[in-house]
Amino acid sequence: MSGSPLLNELIEALRCLPGVGAKTAQRMAFHVLERDRIGAKSLAEKLTAAVERIGNCSRCRTFSEAPVCALCSSTSRDAHLLCVVETPVDQLAIEQATGFRGRYFVLLGRLSPLDGLGPKELGLDLLAARLAEGEVRELIVATNPTVEGEATAHMLSQIAHKAGVRATRLAHGVPLGGELEFIDRGTLAHAFGGRQTLGD
Amino acid sequence: MSGSPLLNELIEALRCLPGVGAKTAQRMAFHVLERDRIGAKSLAEKLTAAVERIGNCSRCRTFSEAPVCALCSSTSRDAHLLCVVETPVDQLAIEQATGFRGRYFVLLGRLSPLDGLGPKELGLDLLAARLAEGEVRELIVATNPTVEGEATAHMLSQIAHKAGVRATRLAHGVPLGGELEFIDRGTLAHAFGGRQTLGD
Repeated sequence: MSGSPLLNELIEALRCLPGVGAKTAQRMAFHVLERDRIGAKSLAEKLTAAVERIGNCSRCRTFSEAPVCALCSSTSRDAHLLCVVETPVDQLAIEQATGFRGRYFVLLGRLSPLDGLGPKELGLDLLAARLAEGEVRELIVATNPTVEGEATAHMLSQIAHKAGVRATRLAHGVPLGGELEFIDRGTLAHAFGGRQTLGD
Repeated sequence: MSGSPLLNELIEALRCLPGVGAKTAQRMAFHVLERDRIGAKSLAEKLTAAVERIGNCSRCRTFSEAPVCALCSSTSRDAHLLCVVETPVDQLAIEQATGFRGRYFVLLGRLSPLDGLGPKELGLDLLAARLAEGEVRELIVATNPTVEGEATAHMLSQIAHKAGVRATRLAHGVPLGGELEFIDRGTLAHAFGGRQTLGD
């Protein structure tokens, strides 16, 4: 505890950031006060603006300051392909890593009844309405390969089936650069079962 | 890059914090937007308040929102002892680890001509004036044991000498829990030379 109440309050407030404990928060507070007051002022402004003005896109539920996000309103994206992800971070990861040019639907979670996350919280009614529009031809299910993610994927495939839309799932297998010796059994079994012909 | 300009600006602004790179900033931004908007709002307020209202104590130069910090204005501290440190963080470390009940003087840096840090920037005139008041009897030099810190310590001892004040330096030696095998030569030589009689 330093002698300045304001400084202590700042250190406490910094702990809302993920991975920031007491010691790191202290270091951050002293750093910005000593060396980067302009940066700190700008950070405060951006935080306020983001919290007040960033909501969710009414079509895909990702973070957006406009009612419909840039990606949903873009005419250069393929409206036949819809990729369903759990969070905006997953959406960003796919956007950065792949050449996917379709659209997204963000669940903002995964099926988890214990946490109060059911079909309604995940916006599955919105998704069903979207599929009913008839434009989407393939629903790419990109939920995480966890127990809850798989349960969510199962429910998504049922929704797609009802709407007469083809549902696909990201391939499971050996990650690039991984060594067979250190890969868990489940993944290895998946990769073995899903083996593909070489030299195509 | 996400589709929301505000979000991108927030991610960029978060990088002013020490140890926060592109990936961590992204994680922090998504975290506060998804799960802790109240915390983010509070953080923005504390940052603004701290940057606008925290200045330096006119007596010891540490961070303080009042013209004279709580520690300098406290009557329960021993005015005969003055401990000189490089930064407010060092002051906090000594305050938390030791039972020191005297006062502090914060240099806000160390002698480093290449970075434009000379005696004036370190407030050494303020320190000399303080010593001339005649109340301080011991100047405890707690600069870091680096090349610049030692040069600063040397200059501080000269100032103390001129004012007729006794200057002391933190002891160098083997850190608690350290193993001799892994301690650098300089420290070991210091510890050997400064050996003390057992059983006093």
